[in-house]
Amino acid sequence: MSSQLWAKNLPLDEQIHAFTVGEDFMTDLQLLPFDAEASAAHARMLGECGLLPESEAKAMVAALRQLRAEAERGEVSITREQEDAHTLLEQVLTARLGDAGRRIQLARSRNDQVQTALRLLMRARLLDLGEALAKCTSVFVEWARQCSGAPLPGYTHMRRAMPSSWGMWSVAFAEGFIEELEQLPALWLRLDRSPLGAAAGFGSPVPIRRERTAELLGFSHVQRSPVDVMNSRGRHEQAIAGWIVSAAGTLEKAIWDLLIWSTDEVRFVRLPDAFTTGSSLMPQKRNPDVLELARARCRELRGFAGSLSHLAGGLPSSYHRDHQLLKAPFFEMLGKAEQLFQIVARLIPALEINEEACAAACSSEIHAAREACRLAADGVPFRDAYTRVAQQLQEGSFAATNETGVAIDLGLEEVGAELAKSEAWIGDRRSFLTTTTERLFDWK
Amino acid sequence: MSSQLWAKNLPLDEQIHAFTVGEDFMTDLQLLPFDAEASAAHARMLGECGLLPESEAKAMVAALRQLRAEAERGEVSITREQEDAHTLLEQVLTARLGDAGRRIQLARSRNDQVQTALRLLMRARLLDLGEALAKCTSVFVEWARQCSGAPLPGYTHMRRAMPSSWGMWSVAFAEGFIEELEQLPALWLRLDRSPLGAAAGFGSPVPIRRERTAELLGFSHVQRSPVDVMNSRGRHEQAIAGWIVSAAGTLEKAIWDLLIWSTDEVRFVRLPDAFTTGSSLMPQKRNPDVLELARARCRELRGFAGSLSHLAGGLPSSYHRDHQLLKAPFFEMLGKAEQLFQIVARLIPALEINEEACAAACSSEIHAAREACRLAADGVPFRDAYTRVAQQLQEGSFAATNETGVAIDLGLEEVGAELAKSEAWIGDRRSFLTTTTERLFDWK
Amino acid sequence: MSSQLWAKNLPLDEQIHAFTVGEDFMTDLQLLPFDAEASAAHARMLGECGLLPESEAKAMVAALRQLRAEAERGEVSITREQEDAHTLLEQVLTARLGDAGRRIQLARSRNDQVQTALRLLMRARLLDLGEALAKCTSVFVEWARQCSGAPLPGYTHMRRAMPSSWGMWSVAFAEGFIEELEQLPALWLRLDRSPLGAAAGFGSPVPIRRERTAELLGFSHVQRSPVDVMNSRGRHEQAIAGWIVSAAGTLEKAIWDLLIWSTDEVRFVRLPDAFTTGSSLMPQKRNPDVLELARARCRELRGFAGSLSHLAGGLPSSYHRDHQLLKAPFFEMLGKAEQLFQIVARLIPALEINEEACAAACSSEIHAAREACRLAADGVPFRDAYTRVAQQLQEGSFAATNETGVAIDLGLEEVGAELAKSEAWIGDRRSFLTTTTERLFDWK
Amino acid sequence: MSSQLWAKNLPLDEQIHAFTVGEDFMTDLQLLPFDAEASAAHARMLGECGLLPESEAKAMVAALRQLRAEAERGEVSITREQEDAHTLLEQVLTARLGDAGRRIQLARSRNDQVQTALRLLMRARLLDLGEALAKCTSVFVEWARQCSGAPLPGYTHMRRAMPSSWGMWSVAFAEGFIEELEQLPALWLRLDRSPLGAAAGFGSPVPIRRERTAELLGFSHVQRSPVDVMNSRGRHEQAIAGWIVSAAGTLEKAIWDLLIWSTDEVRFVRLPDAFTTGSSLMPQKRNPDVLELARARCRELRGFAGSLSHLAGGLPSSYHRDHQLLKAPFFEMLGKAEQLFQIVARLIPALEINEEACAAACSSEIHAAREACRLAADGVPFRDAYTRVAQQLQEGSFAATNETGVAIDLGLEEVGAELAKSEAWIGDRRSFLTTTTERLFDWK
Repeated sequence: MSSQLWAKNLPLDEQIHAFTVGEDFMTDLQLLPFDAEASAAHARMLGECGLLPESEAKAMVAALRQLRAEAERGEVSITREQEDAHTLLEQVLTARLGDAGRRIQLARSRNDQVQTALRLLMRARLLDLGEALAKCTSVFVEWARQCSGAPLPGYTHMRRAMPSSWGMWSVAFAEGFIEELEQLPALWLRLDRSPLGAAAGFGSPVPIRRERTAELLGFSHVQRSPVDVMNSRGRHEQAIAGWIVSAAGTLEKAIWDLLIWSTDEVRFVRLPDAFTTGSSLMPQKRNPDVLELARARCRELRGFAGSLSHLAGGLPSSYHRDHQLLKAPFFEMLGKAEQLFQIVARLIPALEINEEACAAACSSEIHAAREACRLAADGVPFRDAYTRVAQQLQEGSFAATNETGVAIDLGLEEVGAELAKSEAWIGDRRSFLTTTTERLFDWK
Repeated sequence: MSSQLWAKNLPLDEQIHAFTVGEDFMTDLQLLPFDAEASAAHARMLGECGLLPESEAKAMVAALRQLRAEAERGEVSITREQEDAHTLLEQVLTARLGDAGRRIQLARSRNDQVQTALRLLMRARLLDLGEALAKCTSVFVEWARQCSGAPLPGYTHMRRAMPSSWGMWSVAFAEGFIEELEQLPALWLRLDRSPLGAAAGFGSPVPIRRERTAELLGFSHVQRSPVDVMNSRGRHEQAIAGWIVSAAGTLEKAIWDLLIWSTDEVRFVRLPDAFTTGSSLMPQKRNPDVLELARARCRELRGFAGSLSHLAGGLPSSYHRDHQLLKAPFFEMLGKAEQLFQIVARLIPALEINEEACAAACSSEIHAAREACRLAADGVPFRDAYTRVAQQLQEGSFAATNETGVAIDLGLEEVGAELAKSEAWIGDRRSFLTTTTERLFDWK
Repeated sequence: MSSQLWAKNLPLDEQIHAFTVGEDFMTDLQLLPFDAEASAAHARMLGECGLLPESEAKAMVAALRQLRAEAERGEVSITREQEDAHTLLEQVLTARLGDAGRRIQLARSRNDQVQTALRLLMRARLLDLGEALAKCTSVFVEWARQCSGAPLPGYTHMRRAMPSSWGMWSVAFAEGFIEELEQLPALWLRLDRSPLGAAAGFGSPVPIRRERTAELLGFSHVQRSPVDVMNSRGRHEQAIAGWIVSAAGTLEKAIWDLLIWSTDEVRFVRLPDAFTTGSSLMPQKRNPDVLELARARCRELRGFAGSLSHLAGGLPSSYHRDHQLLKAPFFEMLGKAEQLFQIVARLIPALEINEEACAAACSSEIHAAREACRLAADGVPFRDAYTRVAQQLQEGSFAATNETGVAIDLGLEEVGAELAKSEAWIGDRRSFLTTTTERLFDWK
Repeated sequence: MSSQLWAKNLPLDEQIHAFTVGEDFMTDLQLLPFDAEASAAHARMLGECGLLPESEAKAMVAALRQLRAEAERGEVSITREQEDAHTLLEQVLTARLGDAGRRIQLARSRNDQVQTALRLLMRARLLDLGEALAKCTSVFVEWARQCSGAPLPGYTHMRRAMPSSWGMWSVAFAEGFIEELEQLPALWLRLDRSPLGAAAGFGSPVPIRRERTAELLGFSHVQRSPVDVMNSRGRHEQAIAGWIVSAAGTLEKAIWDLLIWSTDEVRFVRLPDAFTTGSSLMPQKRNPDVLELARARCRELRGFAGSLSHLAGGLPSSYHRDHQLLKAPFFEMLGKAEQLFQIVARLIPALEINEEACAAACSSEIHAAREACRLAADGVPFRDAYTRVAQQLQEGSFAATNETGVAIDLGLEEVGAELAKSEAWIGDRRSFLTTTTERLFDWK
C-alpha cells in the first residue's frame, strides 16, 4: 500500500482503494508505451537543459526505451496496487536506476503526464482508425468496380423508386468514408500540440523548455495555455468519438441494407457462411449474426460517444479526478470501432449477389420518373407529365420505353484518387511518428 | 471450434469468432448461476410432465445445483471458445450426464433461456441495489439525527438564501431515496413474469407447462405472449437503469454540495483522510478524489443508461443478435451503481462538520425573507414588505429580530418508518427467493 | 419592463431579457391552469388560517377560478414582457382585486409555486398519456381478436423462424403496453406529494398548513422535506420520460414490422391510403410517410429523454435557474408522445392484411423446429433430432407432417381483463381529480 | 387540401395531416431563402442547357430573387396547409408565372431540393456561428490583456493549487475557442459539395449539368454519388452539432468558474446587475440567473446533439421520411448556440474583479510546489523535496521564499494572430457567398 506515490501513511481502506483505482490498472496497459515515450522526452529535455545530469537523463531514456518495448510486447502488467501506468513507470525507473529514477517527476505533474500520454495515444490510434477505414473504403471501391453493372432497384422510403446498381450502391459508401478520411488532418491539427510542461495546469515553476519536448515528441506546437491543457481533457476524446460515430453512421446504412436484402423475402444477396450462424432450436436457420452485431456495434459506438459527452461536461475549468473515468469508455470505443471496420472490410468481398433476383425486382414502374421527365423535357409541365404517368400506372398501361436505367458514371477513378490521397497522408504521418520515436530514443 | 452448438462444420475465422463472442465469455460468469437455476426448473418440469424420464431430470437438477454452487463460489470460468454461459452449461451437463445431458435443450431455445436467466439475475440484483440504497438512506437518516441542530445556510442559485441545518440537508436525501425505494415493488411487477417456454419467441411446439416453471422459479405469472418475451429484451434493462439514474441523480446533488462545502473557501465540512488523496506535484494538497469519482460515477451511470437506450431501440419485433450487446453495459452499470451507494454510505458518517464556519455563514441577511413575511402577516402586501426589507438591506439597517431560524420538524420518525417498510419489503423478497431456490433444487 | 416582479429598477438589456425568458412565455400557457389551481389552494389555506382575511381569500379563489377557465379555453396569452405564467397570474389578480391580489405571494416562493403547478400538470398529463396508451392497447387487442387466425411467419433475426399469426403478433404489443399501464400507479405515487409550502426550499417562515393545501389539491401526502421539493425538479420529469420511452420502444417494434411487411417485396399488409403519400418525382410511389414519422418519433422521444437527463443532472442540491430549461423539452415530449399513441391507434384498424401473401410465406421449413421437437419427445436427444432435420432440409427431403402451426391460446380474455383494470384505475383517478378541483373552487 | 403537391385526391384526415407536417411550416421559414437560391441555380442551369426556354428560366430566377428577398425580410409565412417551404415556393412561382412556374420541378426531386437548401443554410449558419465564437474569443483575449496581472489562485480538484492570474484564466478559453475556429475549414470541406441533381437519390433521368449548379451556388465540387447525397442527411447536422458541443463544453467551464467565484463565500468577481435577478421571496438575493441559464444551455446543446444522434441513425441507406424530424432540433440548436456565444461575449467585459479577495486567496501554500521544485533543481530527488515541504506545511513552518508566482507569458500576440487568421477566413468565405449569390441572380 505504501507504493502509492501520494500516500501519506494514511490507512486507505481497500474498498475505497478499489473505487479510486477503478479500471486504471487495466486501461493503462494501453497507455504505458506512450507514457514511456513522453517520459523519455521529458527526461531528455531535463538533461539537455542541465536540470538533470546528462548521464542520469540518458540512463532514464534507455530504461524507458526498454520499458516501452516490453509494454508493446505485452510483457508488462499493472497490479491493482500499482494503480496505473504512471506509478508503475516510476517504480520501474526507481528499481532500475535507484534514486535517480525518482527524478523523472521533476517539473511535471501527473496532470500533464497523463495528458501527454493520451495525446500520443490518440495520435497513433487515429492513424490506426484511419487505416482501418481506408481499407474498408478500398473494399467498397473494389466491390463497386466488380458490380458496376449489376442492377439493383433504388429504394426510397424502403420502396422501389428508380433504377440503381450494386456499383452505385457500393461507391456511395466509399464516398461517404472519404468525406471522413478527409477530416483526419483536421483532427490531427487538434492533437498536434504538446501538453507536456503544463504541470498541474498552471505551468511549471522550473524553467523547462516546452518547445524542446514538443519537438522530441513530434508536435508542431506547444499547447501554450496550461489551463487549456487541462480543459482539453475530454475535448479531444469527443472529437475522435464524433468522427467514429459519423463513419459508423454511414456504415450502419450499408449493414441495414444487407440485412434486409439478404432476407428470405428479398434474396438480393447471400451472406457468406462464415458470417452467419445457426439456431439452437430451428434447424433451417442461417442467422446473420455478424451483421446484426455490426449493426448493434454502430449503436453501441453512439452510446460510448454519449457517455463521453456526459463524462466530459459539467465541470469547472482545470483538472478534476472525474476525468479519470473518460479513459475506459474511450479506449473501449477505439478498439471496438477499429474491429468494426475490419470485420466489414472482410465481409463485403465475400458477398454473393443474386443477379437474377435483383434484375427481377427492377420492375417497370421504377422507370416512371424517367418517363415523366422525358415528357417534361418535351415541354409538358412536370406536374402534368407526372399525373399522366401516374394514370398509366394505375390503368396498367404504363410501359417503360427504355429499360437500361440511369447510366451514371460512378466516378471510380476520382474516388480512387481521393482515397489514395488520404492513404498517402496516413502513411506519411505514420512514418513521421516512427522516425520521431526513433530519434527521441537515439540519444547518445 | 466444434464446441459451438450451432456450428455446422463451417470454418469460422477466428476474427469473426472473436467479434461474435464479444464479451459474453466474461459477462456470462454473472449469468451462469441464474442459468443453472432456470435450467433446473426446465428440467424438473420436463421430468414432471413425462417429457423426460424422471430419473434423468433429477440427475440434471442435481448436476445443475452443483454447477450453480460452483459458479457462485467463483470456481467456473468460461473460455472464449465456449463463448457463453449457455454453451458451458450444456457442455457441463453432457460431461457429467452423458447423452442425457444434451436433452436439456428440449422444448426451449437460447432465446427464452437467456431471457429467463436475465430475469432471474435482474430480480436478484434489484434486491442488491435496493439493499445498498436502503443502507445509504439509513446513513443519511442517522446523520440527520446527529446533526439536526447544526446550522447551515440554505442556498438557492448557490447563493445564501434562508436558514437551514445539516439535519434539513441530510433528511432531504433520505426522502429522495425513499421515493426510489418505494418504486421497487413496481419494478418487481415488471420482472415478475416468467419468460421460460417462449422458446424462440413463438411458443414451444412441445406441450410444456409454463405455469409450472414459473412457479418453480418464484414468478407470480407467466409472460403469456412469447413475442412479448422477445420484445421485452432491453425494456427491463432500461427500467432498472432509469431507477438507478434517478437515485444517482439525487445522490449527485449531495456529492456536489460536499465538494463545494469542503473547499478551502467554504470549509463547512472536512472530508476524512481516507477519502482524499494527495497531489504528485503539490505537497499541500488534499484532493477529494473519492467524491470526485463518485460525482463522475453519477454521470457515468447516465451514460450507461444512454447506451442502453441506443442499443435497445431501432429494431423490429422479436429476437435479433443485436440484443447481445445489452449485457455488458447493463451488468457493468449494476455493479458500478451498487459500489457507488456503498461508498457513499461509508463516507457520510465520516464527515467532520465545522460548526463554527457554518454558524458564521448564517449571516443576518438570510433572515430577510422571514422578516418580509412577518410584515406581510401583519397586513402589509407582501411585495411592499419585500421592498421595505430590501431597502433596509441596501442601507445596512436590516437587523433580523430573531435568529433562531425556521424550526422545521425533520419528520425523522416518519422517514424511519417509511424506510423500515421498504427494508421489510426487500427482506421479504430476499427470503422468498432463497426459499424458492431451495425448494426448486430439493426434488426427491 | 417594470412588470418583472424581481426588477429593482435595473436596466435590463433586451437581449439578456430574451435570453432569460427563453420559451417560458410559450410553455407556460400549459402551466397556467395548474398554477391557478395551486394558487387557489394556497389562497384558501391562507384564508382558512387567518393569514389573509377570509373575504380577500375568497375573492382570490373566485378570480383564480375565472383565470383557470379562461386559460383552459385558450383565451389567455402571455407576452414576452410578462415572462411566464406566474407573473401573469399575479398581474391578473392585482388588476382584478387591487392590492389584495398581491398578497397571493405571502408565504410562498416562485420555487414551490412552479413545482406545485408542474406536479399538478404531470398528474393530469399522466392520465392523458395513460388514456391514449390504453386506447392504443385496446386497438391491438381488437386487432388480435379479428386476426387471430391469420397466419404469419414468425421471424427471428428478420429470418423466417416458426409459425405465428397476426393475432399472436398483435396481442404481443397489447401485453407490452399493459406492462406499462400497470406502472402508472407507481408513477402516481411519485407525484402524490404536495410541494406547496416548501417556499424557496427551506420552508416557509410563516406558520402555514401544508397538509391543508395538499388535501385541497388532492395529494395524499405532503412532500415533507422542502429541500427534496427542490431536488425533485427534473426527477419526476425523467420518470415520466422513462415511461414514455419504454412504451414507445415497444411501439417502435410494431411500426418497424409494418414498414417491412408493407414493402413491395413482402406485401403482408397494405397501408391505408390516408397513411401514405406520393413522391414529387416518381408517379408510382406510395410512401409510408406516416409510419416513418411515427418510427422517427420514437427515436425523437428517446432524444428528449436524453436531453432531460443532461439538463436535470450535474448540479448541487436546491434550486438553480438551470431548471427552467427542463420545461420546454418536457412539455414537447408529453404532447408528441400522446399524438404518437393516437395516430397509431387510428392506423392499426385501417390495415389491410394480404392473407394470401402471408400464407405463402409460411413455407414448410418454419415447421422444422417442431419436427425436431417431435423427434426429441420420442427420445432422440434434441441435438441429434436437430441434426437429422437439418440434413433433411439440406437434401430437400423435409416435409412437415402437420402444418397447422403452434396453437397458442392468445389469452385475449386475460388481456382484456388486465386492460380493463388499468382503464378503471385511470377513470377513477380522472374523476378524483375533477371532484377535487370542483371542491377546491367551491368555497362559500 | 388540394394544395399538397403529392395529393392524389385522397381524403387526408386532419389529424394525420398535422402529424405529417409536424413543425415544417415553422422551421421552413429559415430554409426558404436558401431554397429560393438553390431553385434559382436549378432554373438557370435548365435554361442554359436548353431544358427550359431561356426566357422562362430568367423569369423564374427573377421571381425567386424576389421571393428570397421577401423571405429574408420576414414577409413570408407558411401555412400549415402549405406544409413546407418547397410547396410554398412552387405555389408562389405558379402564382407569379402561371404554368411555367410549375416546370421548376423538372429533373429534381424534393430529396435533392431539401438537401441543397439545407447545405446552403448550413454553410451560412456555420459562418454565423464562427463569427459569434470569434467575437467571444476576442472578448476573452481582451479580458486577458486587461487582467494579465490580476492574481488568482489556480485550482485543481476545486482546491487551491498554484499561483495563477485572471489573464492566465481568460486566455485559456481563447485558446480553446481558437482550436474550434481552426476546425471551421474542415467543416466547410464537408459542406462544400453540391447535392443538387441527385434527384431522389439515384440521379436525374434528364441530362442536367450538376457542375454548373454547383458553380452557381459556390460549391467547389459536386457530391458525386446521389446515394451518398441521401446518406449524408443527418451526417452534416451531427458534424456541426459536434463542433457546437465542443465549443460549448469549453465555455461551460468558464461559466462554472464564474458561478463559483461570484458566490458569497468566494467573491473573486461580481456579476454586473444586468446579468442577475432578484428573488420573489428573499429581498437580499441577487441571483446569477443569466449565468445559470448559460450553463444549462451548454447541457441543453448536448441534449440536442444527442437527439440528432438518435434521429439520424438506425436506418437503411437512401431517403426516409424520418429525416424530416432532424430539422427542428438542428435549427433550434443553431439559434441557441449563437445566442449563447453572444450573451457570453457581452458578459465578460462587464465583470468586476475583486482584486483584494483574489490576492488574499493566494495564500502561501500555493507556492509549495515551486519550493519543492526549487529543492529538486538543487539536486534533491523530487519525492524527497516534496516530503520535506509537506512536513513544513504540516508544522506551519513553510514560508514561500518568493511570492511573485509563475511568470508565464500569456502569448497574447500569438493568440491574437491566430484569431485574426480565423476571422480572416470567416470574412473571406462570407464575401465569397455574397458575391456568389449576387452573380447567380444577376442573369441577363
